[in-house]
Amino acid sequence: MSFSVTILGSSSALPTSKRFLSAHLLKVDERFFLIDCGEGTQIQLRKFKVKLGKINNIFISHLHGDHVLGLYGLILSFNLLGRKHDLNIYAHNDIEPIINFHLKYFCHNIEFKINIHAINCRKKEIIYEDHKITVQTIPLKHRIPTCGFIFKEKQKTLNIKKEIVDYYKIPINEILRIKEGADFVTSEGKILPNKNMTLPPFIPRSYAYCSDSSYKESIISLIKDVDILYHEATFLQKDADKARDTYHCTAEQAAEIALKANVKKLLIGHFSARYKSIQLFMEEAKKIFENTCAVEDGEIYSVELRREDYNYL
Amino acid sequence: MSFSVTILGSSSALPTSKRFLSAHLLKVDERFFLIDCGEGTQIQLRKFKVKLGKINNIFISHLHGDHVLGLYGLILSFNLLGRKHDLNIYAHNDIEPIINFHLKYFCHNIEFKINIHAINCRKKEIIYEDHKITVQTIPLKHRIPTCGFIFKEKQKTLNIKKEIVDYYKIPINEILRIKEGADFVTSEGKILPNKNMTLPPFIPRSYAYCSDSSYKESIISLIKDVDILYHEATFLQKDADKARDTYHCTAEQAAEIALKANVKKLLIGHFSARYKSIQLFMEEAKKIFENTCAVEDGEIYSVELRREDYNYL
Repeated sequence: MSFSVTILGSSSALPTSKRFLSAHLLKVDERFFLIDCGEGTQIQLRKFKVKLGKINNIFISHLHGDHVLGLYGLILSFNLLGRKHDLNIYAHNDIEPIINFHLKYFCHNIEFKINIHAINCRKKEIIYEDHKITVQTIPLKHRIPTCGFIFKEKQKTLNIKKEIVDYYKIPINEILRIKEGADFVTSEGKILPNKNMTLPPFIPRSYAYCSDSSYKESIISLIKDVDILYHEATFLQKDADKARDTYHCTAEQAAEIALKANVKKLLIGHFSARYKSIQLFMEEAKKIFENTCAVEDGEIYSVELRREDYNYL
Repeated sequence: MSFSVTILGSSSALPTSKRFLSAHLLKVDERFFLIDCGEGTQIQLRKFKVKLGKINNIFISHLHGDHVLGLYGLILSFNLLGRKHDLNIYAHNDIEPIINFHLKYFCHNIEFKINIHAINCRKKEIIYEDHKITVQTIPLKHRIPTCGFIFKEKQKTLNIKKEIVDYYKIPINEILRIKEGADFVTSEGKILPNKNMTLPPFIPRSYAYCSDSSYKESIISLIKDVDILYHEATFLQKDADKARDTYHCTAEQAAEIALKANVKKLLIGHFSARYKSIQLFMEEAKKIFENTCAVEDGEIYSVELRREDYNYL
């Protein structure tokens, strides 16, 4: 029941000796969602012992090289490792000719299908859905069409207590009804109220990824109350003019967004390689939003399971 | 007066947690020659503190992804760092549409010129020459057109002793003549024999890079007596059938080539990710050619300066 994000790369356009290019890996239970895929992403995945075959969905925020050039090698490696199952890539439409060109020159014997899901970066829309989560786009403001992504667990059902199931030998169809709120009538005709058999559901968890973008207040309503917001912070406030000119944010601006969106935790990254230390990023952001972390490659941020009301029973 | 090769990546097609994809960096004095450029090469260059602006010549052995996909990001980074001077790429002709396609999508504002030097992988030819070195191709045998490269210092002149120059205040034009073997006549008419003024020249150093290839004896005459031979050793002898089928070599075959070519040192690399340890590669190669090293990323192999005859004077 894990919900965690691993930082695979935290530098901006230029890698540094300690930071790879943009890529995050979201793990929801045993499924992995790769978000952006800068050069070297497959190397980080190997380093952090991620089974490549478990990655079936890749979300690309925009088609700047530092967010996408790792895709080529990753696709080659998938093929070398014998992948047969589909790969889904969610990205701007231009990804299709780029991938096709690459396949033609470097991987003409590909043995799995790549499904390209073109996304419209101008509007918020749900682009992925399964029985556990949805992924919705967050239109951002950058030099080229760009969007972030918000990953949300779906509303969960009540949790039925295992000892009740065992004691009354409740059949599976009744379990499903109870999880939806029904009471249970035993074979002796005794009514067991739902609230005595269940624990409140776990609160759906959420993760929002916002990179690259200028300061954009209209995203706030879309990321309201998320558990973890990753927001790019390429520059310090002293270089706000550079941030503005290149359609990026400062640490202060990222914190401002986090504060106004009432998120639980802010991660900042995508630091320009011009800065020797990220200490000032932390100081700048924390003045505005205390629960900020400046990420490092290899870090894992988890959201623990919490019930809606611990005092339910 | 350095002559050294830095191993940037030593895995074969799949990176591992410890090995990047193929790339070597040859340093001759203060000039750098990049040989192959697998994904992540720029990350390794940053890690090993190499100034990217000093790389002006890149040699690509063949257009398989694990030898070339790092070029894209490297070109982007050159541009971001403000490069204005030309970049020369020596590779199979197909590199041109590949790079042009990449530039069109990811780097349309490039501010330096890329000169593509198409090489014919079927014949040995000198493809690069400056006042210090030559680079000649070594036709290899792989699934696609492939060649290795041999980097050779040019024949050096005699070394004139500094104390002689200072004592007799020998003018520059005379110094050049003496370096070519002439005697010197002082203003008083005294003849100084060349051998009293000079030390024998340093022996030209050489480095041969051979990857990827089946066992191919015809390369032996081209790499005869080199100081360092890097030869791929993708497989162990127990998997010789796989080596044959994929047009690669075993460690034993690489050592066989080194022995027959009478090289001074053999480096082996490009190990298949299927092997957990490289110990057996070493054992297999050393049985045939003792002075073998199985390379690791980040290692530097240098060739020291040696004079033709230490007992000259």
